[in-house]
Amino acid sequence: MILANKGQSVVPDISFIGGTALTLNKTNDIIENAQIDILHGRIVSIKSVSKPTQLLAKKIIDASGCLVMPGLINGHTHTGMTLLRGIADDLPLHNWLNDKIFPLEKKWVSKDFVYLGNLLAQLEMIRSGTTIFNDMYYFEAAAAQAVQESGLRAICGQTLVEISGVEDTQKIFAQFDQYLEAIAHFPRVLPAIAPHSIYGVSDPVWEKITQYASERSLRVHLHLQETKSEVEDCQKKRNMTPTEFFEKVGLFRNKTIVAHAVCMEEKDISILSKYQVGVIHNPESNLKLGSLIAPVVKMRDAGVSIGLGTDGTASNNNLDLLEEADTALKLQIFQTGVGKLKALDVVRMLTLEGAKALKLDHEIGSLEVGKSADLIAVNTEFPHAVPLYDPFSHLAYSASGRDVKHSVVGGSVLMENGKVLTLDEKAILQEAKQWGRRIASGIS
Amino acid sequence: MILANKGQSVVPDISFIGGTALTLNKTNDIIENAQIDILHGRIVSIKSVSKPTQLLAKKIIDASGCLVMPGLINGHTHTGMTLLRGIADDLPLHNWLNDKIFPLEKKWVSKDFVYLGNLLAQLEMIRSGTTIFNDMYYFEAAAAQAVQESGLRAICGQTLVEISGVEDTQKIFAQFDQYLEAIAHFPRVLPAIAPHSIYGVSDPVWEKITQYASERSLRVHLHLQETKSEVEDCQKKRNMTPTEFFEKVGLFRNKTIVAHAVCMEEKDISILSKYQVGVIHNPESNLKLGSLIAPVVKMRDAGVSIGLGTDGTASNNNLDLLEEADTALKLQIFQTGVGKLKALDVVRMLTLEGAKALKLDHEIGSLEVGKSADLIAVNTEFPHAVPLYDPFSHLAYSASGRDVKHSVVGGSVLMENGKVLTLDEKAILQEAKQWGRRIASGIS
Repeated sequence: MILANKGQSVVPDISFIGGTALTLNKTNDIIENAQIDILHGRIVSIKSVSKPTQLLAKKIIDASGCLVMPGLINGHTHTGMTLLRGIADDLPLHNWLNDKIFPLEKKWVSKDFVYLGNLLAQLEMIRSGTTIFNDMYYFEAAAAQAVQESGLRAICGQTLVEISGVEDTQKIFAQFDQYLEAIAHFPRVLPAIAPHSIYGVSDPVWEKITQYASERSLRVHLHLQETKSEVEDCQKKRNMTPTEFFEKVGLFRNKTIVAHAVCMEEKDISILSKYQVGVIHNPESNLKLGSLIAPVVKMRDAGVSIGLGTDGTASNNNLDLLEEADTALKLQIFQTGVGKLKALDVVRMLTLEGAKALKLDHEIGSLEVGKSADLIAVNTEFPHAVPLYDPFSHLAYSASGRDVKHSVVGGSVLMENGKVLTLDEKAILQEAKQWGRRIASGIS
Repeated sequence: MILANKGQSVVPDISFIGGTALTLNKTNDIIENAQIDILHGRIVSIKSVSKPTQLLAKKIIDASGCLVMPGLINGHTHTGMTLLRGIADDLPLHNWLNDKIFPLEKKWVSKDFVYLGNLLAQLEMIRSGTTIFNDMYYFEAAAAQAVQESGLRAICGQTLVEISGVEDTQKIFAQFDQYLEAIAHFPRVLPAIAPHSIYGVSDPVWEKITQYASERSLRVHLHLQETKSEVEDCQKKRNMTPTEFFEKVGLFRNKTIVAHAVCMEEKDISILSKYQVGVIHNPESNLKLGSLIAPVVKMRDAGVSIGLGTDGTASNNNLDLLEEADTALKLQIFQTGVGKLKALDVVRMLTLEGAKALKLDHEIGSLEVGKSADLIAVNTEFPHAVPLYDPFSHLAYSASGRDVKHSVVGGSVLMENGKVLTLDEKAILQEAKQWGRRIASGIS
């Protein structure tokens, strides 16, 4: 029981019992036979209880045989395009975007498309242990609506991209004001402005974005230096890298999160570190689209906080973060040799370090008293989890999102015993398949 | 119904109904609403049946919402060491072997260790859609015994490795004779001789192995050119690559399967192609142990048949072949650019091409009338499988072994509705955990 003021005892809303808690806190405490109490959406107690007595929580979640840990953080997604999963494989980034994705999006993207795509993506994310995602897409208010229903947490970034030349900036920002208003009442949604990339937004607009974000303390979420050609084109045009350009226009004075950071020079990395820009590493997408491997170890050594992301389902093609961590770790071993990045490191990237990259580490990312109750239980009663000599090794190298059993966000139970409670899975799959058939038949 | 001789109708033992059959045959036929009939362990009929009438099979397996395909082929395993899963991460190959794995094996490997490790591995393999594995370890008769119980199919390779100098070859081969006798009565086990590597077996013994295998038509299974140092050492010592050495001693006149083939020169690839040596690509293990990426596209272009393997669980750390395929494909995109290797290619590597690498393509690897009934049903009623525009894209980029619902080998049902029928999962996990605790406490 939790003692409130004046000696009154307060019954927790939820108690997780029986699992091994991986707190992912600064000292990486691991607590066997953990009892984690949750009250009013926050963690209020974590202790080892060999034999729970007088359990007085309103709800008990049995985490026996599980690793209980902070919910996983997906630092870079395009959930609104989930209905395009697997529609365009085998193309490098710029062809993929220009020849397939942009035309398909032009044809199909609408509020309904984004809303359903989000229900589908969020269903998959809950099932695979994600508790917060940092998104960038169109009709983002529809994404936020889906978040309201799914119970997840999200940073919703409305995309800015000038496909047909420089647009009317007054109109852009007026629309953005409307967007901010539309999502202001969603309690688990944080707003972000998401200018696509150095090649997707014209130079004068960047200064305005910087100012707009600054005035509103908005997070800024963008793609950065994903390919060599992006950097080369920028050098030719501006005589500097995109990172240098963004520093020049003052963008990084805002809370900034950059996705990819693949083709980075030393000076770029120094700038990111100087401004504590958060980086999100998306290894599966990078490989699938023919890009290189981001210098994760180098950036972390320089003090940059790095989280993991799946990118959109059209370039992955699932949203399984534990698989992403496995790939991330193995690629860094390939790139920098064995031992520079280890299992514990990628698990931290999925949790506290990812939270730091999103500037949310005061709230989430570790199991600590006072933090938001965003946590999951990963079942280890499977052949591929036995023997289990080291839980971080298991999570990085063997586990998958399919092992997640329970999920709680802000003290609300989103999934219990593998069953998602907040969304109608059957209906969502049915409707998504119908959309899939329409889209497939619409391809010339 | 199947008409036997003289117009008598024969009731199939099993009918798979309701799924989409990916035959993986030469013309890559895909059959919607497939009914696959199995009799006496073989496929006797595959057809599209929009509305099954008069289903007279002894057993009906409902594969609605599933992709039905040939069982997956794991071309390179060390199932006997599964109890060492996750025990030694973050070490490059030669340190990992010499400082950790060999000493641990010296301490723990026994008939019981191998037997239980196999029950655990085979449980995991059945669950994740593998129907045959090509193994190399010690006490391999214990592996074969486990195969007898699990219902899987296997090529069991008794390892030859001279850890402490050249051993008495007469003794080696006498023991091998005993091994062959011990496993001769297992119907789903094929024998192989498994000399570890160029650095694990001395030169004079290779000639004897060549002859021994040839006299008995034995398959030979070995590690080949996994690292640069292996090749450099061989060059220094013999003035040729390991592949050239093995050609010289006549090894490749046997049915040979080589694992890794990472550091390969053009001439090595030509030799493998000339002798139709089967290659097994183990990308996750290669990355994890700090090796390079095998030139899969190059070797396939040269006419080499390549299958996929997981290697042992201490360097992966699971046995999920669909995840392995995802990694294999993305690494080849990284290495050779987008579009050289595609989703269908890796699915073929998991099935018919893998069978060809193991010299078993006349029996397994595709759903064809007359072939052995080794098949699985991969459930697609999941968020991460929706929409499903292309089944091969789904299998390669989104699915995982956790999606497998049914498994049949040689006409026997090993798993139905996700429940393994041939092994006692609970008992195996319990005993494996006990071993894990003993091994963990035995580490100084």
